[in-house]
This record gives sequence, structure tokens and C-alpha cells, in this order.
Amino acid sequence: MDIVETERTRHRRLREQGSHDREDLLAILRQGFVAHLGVTVDGVPMVLPTVFGLDPAGDVVYFHGSVASRSMLAGPETTVCLTVTHVDGLVLARSVFEHGVNYRSAMLYGVPRPVTDDAEKLAGLRVLTEHITPGQWDYVRQPSRKELAATALLALSTVEASVKIRTGPPTDADGPDGDLRVWAGVRPVAPAWGPLVADPELGAGIAVPDHLRAEPHIR
Amino acid sequence: MDIVETERTRHRRLREQGSHDREDLLAILRQGFVAHLGVTVDGVPMVLPTVFGLDPAGDVVYFHGSVASRSMLAGPETTVCLTVTHVDGLVLARSVFEHGVNYRSAMLYGVPRPVTDDAEKLAGLRVLTEHITPGQWDYVRQPSRKELAATALLALSTVEASVKIRTGPPTDADGPDGDLRVWAGVRPVAPAWGPLVADPELGAGIAVPDHLRAEPHIR
Repeated sequence: MDIVETERTRHRRLREQGSHDREDLLAILRQGFVAHLGVTVDGVPMVLPTVFGLDPAGDVVYFHGSVASRSMLAGPETTVCLTVTHVDGLVLARSVFEHGVNYRSAMLYGVPRPVTDDAEKLAGLRVLTEHITPGQWDYVRQPSRKELAATALLALSTVEASVKIRTGPPTDADGPDGDLRVWAGVRPVAPAWGPLVADPELGAGIAVPDHLRAEPHIR
Repeated sequence: MDIVETERTRHRRLREQGSHDREDLLAILRQGFVAHLGVTVDGVPMVLPTVFGLDPAGDVVYFHGSVASRSMLAGPETTVCLTVTHVDGLVLARSVFEHGVNYRSAMLYGVPRPVTDDAEKLAGLRVLTEHITPGQWDYVRQPSRKELAATALLALSTVEASVKIRTGPPTDADGPDGDLRVWAGVRPVAPAWGPLVADPELGAGIAVPDHLRAEPHIR
């Protein structure tokens, strides 16, 4: 299925890096858990890191409303941009000019919907928690009524999206620079999960549960 | 040295995570190479991933002007927000409510200055290149006059900044949840560099230069 193009998401620059494949979008969102949320405050952009979760159907991402103050998300300027980026490597070319980065990036645009219904809020928080650490929702203490009331949750549609992907080696071998005696290639990078570190205050005899033994699929 | 606080950078939320230490800011910028740049277009925020370099004095970051179109950085709405985030781990608490992320994040605000002087542009591109891959500037072909003219470089001051840092274990051991028989702790994460992958088109007998054998200090 293709992503619907809007004036905002039309690829203007680096068009060859643009993807309109919805599967590319969902793969980027599924693998991520930290997004950069852009909100406009008095005409000035503010870019805030925040965790998010993608609902299993791929229609909506959930994130905490507390990331931005209420005033930032109210008023006439309510459209946000939520960007998720995976950095995959440095592209080391034969010239400074051709250097670049291998990456996959998804930008979502829309007006986030505050989740006010308690059942949906609980379901959304479950999506967020399980997206990041599957199995954790049923293992830890779930939100109390008071905590639920104190939690602002926002839902953002994945319909209006822009995806950019760059992969592979540098592309200057075919030009005149290909004759230079310069090493060229890619230096890959990927997040690596370290071994679990127990809370120093952890009670005696509490073992790591099975669902935390598996390495996260997110990055 | 302390960071100067402005209305925009005053810590409103999670005040205990706010830092005003300029060394914290510079450490985050020195370790990073990918930022998320927020620009406002017709009142709507746009968050774009881009590489950046910090000048050795720590006063200015350089990034490519091509990341945003000329129109986005002209006009009355020229203030940008450039955010650099390092994700250090998942904070696995005893309740859903107390879950979080260990991270270090720096937000810079300001109006980027287009670098028009050729000598400064060359120096700025050198900062950008050397920030990401030290030794690469003198090794590869440097920009031609034509390439230099085709490159838009922006400089952003590091003066107006906001830094947030969260480290350490979950903090719910002291409350009532401390009695739950639930494993709690941190799952650390950090980017890991893979072995260099040569361009399949690389000429025979071109060895990896010494400066590329060292693992990058950026992440």
C-alpha cells in the first residue's frame, strides 16, 4: 500500500531517497521507540525527544502528552511533526562533497488527539509499554486510577507521512573520483543492548523474568 | 560555566532532569553527529534529521543548509531548534507509571547564520567533516570551487541551550512499590560501530588508511 502524498510530505529534496511504501514507514516505526516531536510555540519550533508506541494495526502512534505542556498543543497551531530516525552508517566517499549517512527516517504530520476515555487510555499505555518491552505490561503494576488520571496520552495518525531511506555504498566510483587512490565504503552503526543492570535497591531473590531475557527488537 | 537561561530554555517540566552546566551541553554535542532540526513552515513544525559538527571552541555548530529549503529559513520565522539526543537505556520500574528512559538531550535555539565567506565555509565544512571522521578532510578530495558554491552551510550558536539528563536506576524502591516482588533495573543501550564495508567498486590494492582504523568517538 502506498502512502498518500500531501503538499507537506511531497519529496522536494533528495527525491531518490524518498519512499512511498507504507511497509517502509511501518518498519521504521516498529523498530523505533524514541521520536523527536516538533511543536510550534509562538511561531518558534521546539523539538523534544519522546518515547512512542505503534499500535499493532499500524494506524496510530501513542506518546505522552506531558512531553509538551498543554498550551503547546492547544490553540490554533496544533499540528505536530513526529520524526523517527534510524542511523545505519557513515558513507565514506572519495570526496568531502559526496560524504553522507545511511539512514531511515519517517516523519508523521497531524494534530494529535488527546485520549480521554479511560479504557482507550489504558489500551494506549499498554501499546506504548508493550511496543518498548513486550511482556512488561502484565508483569509490573498497572496504572492506578489516580495515575491514569495524571497521565496525558496523545494519539497521532500514521496517515500523513514522509519516509526517506539511504542505503548502500558511496556512488562516486563511476565518476572521475573513481580513479582516486582513496579508500571508500561504509562504516555501519547500530544500537547494541547491554546486559541488564539490577536496581541496587532490588529485593533479595527477585530473578529476571523470562520476557526481559530476550533482547529487544527495538533500536 | 553555566548556560544562560531564557524564557524558551527555562526548565518547566522534569526540572530535576535539567542541567545548566555548559560542560554537559558540550559533551552531548561532541558525542553526537545526528541532530533533529525543527523549522516552522506556515506555522507547522517540520523535524528533519541532519548531521552537524561542533567547532572545537564549542561556540557554534555547523550543518548543511540544504537540509531545509531556502524558503524555510528565510522570512520572519527563522528561529530553529536543533536537538541532539543520546539514548542510554530503558528504565524498567516496578510500575508502568514509573517507566522511563535514561538519556542526555541538548536543544539549541537560534537563528542560523548562512556562511557566505568562502574561507569560513571551507573551515566550517572541515569542522563538520572532522567532527564526524577525524583525519578524513586531509585524506579525501576537498571541495572544488564549484562544489563549495553549491554547498549551503549554516552556523548556529550554542549560547541559547537547554540540556536534560536522566541517569541511574528507577526511583520507586523507596515507595510502596519497593515491596513488590518485581525485577527492576536498567537495560543499557549504546550505538556500536561495525567493521568497515568497502565499496564494491573500490579499486584493487587500496588499503584502509590509519585514521579510519580507529573507532569513532561519536555515537
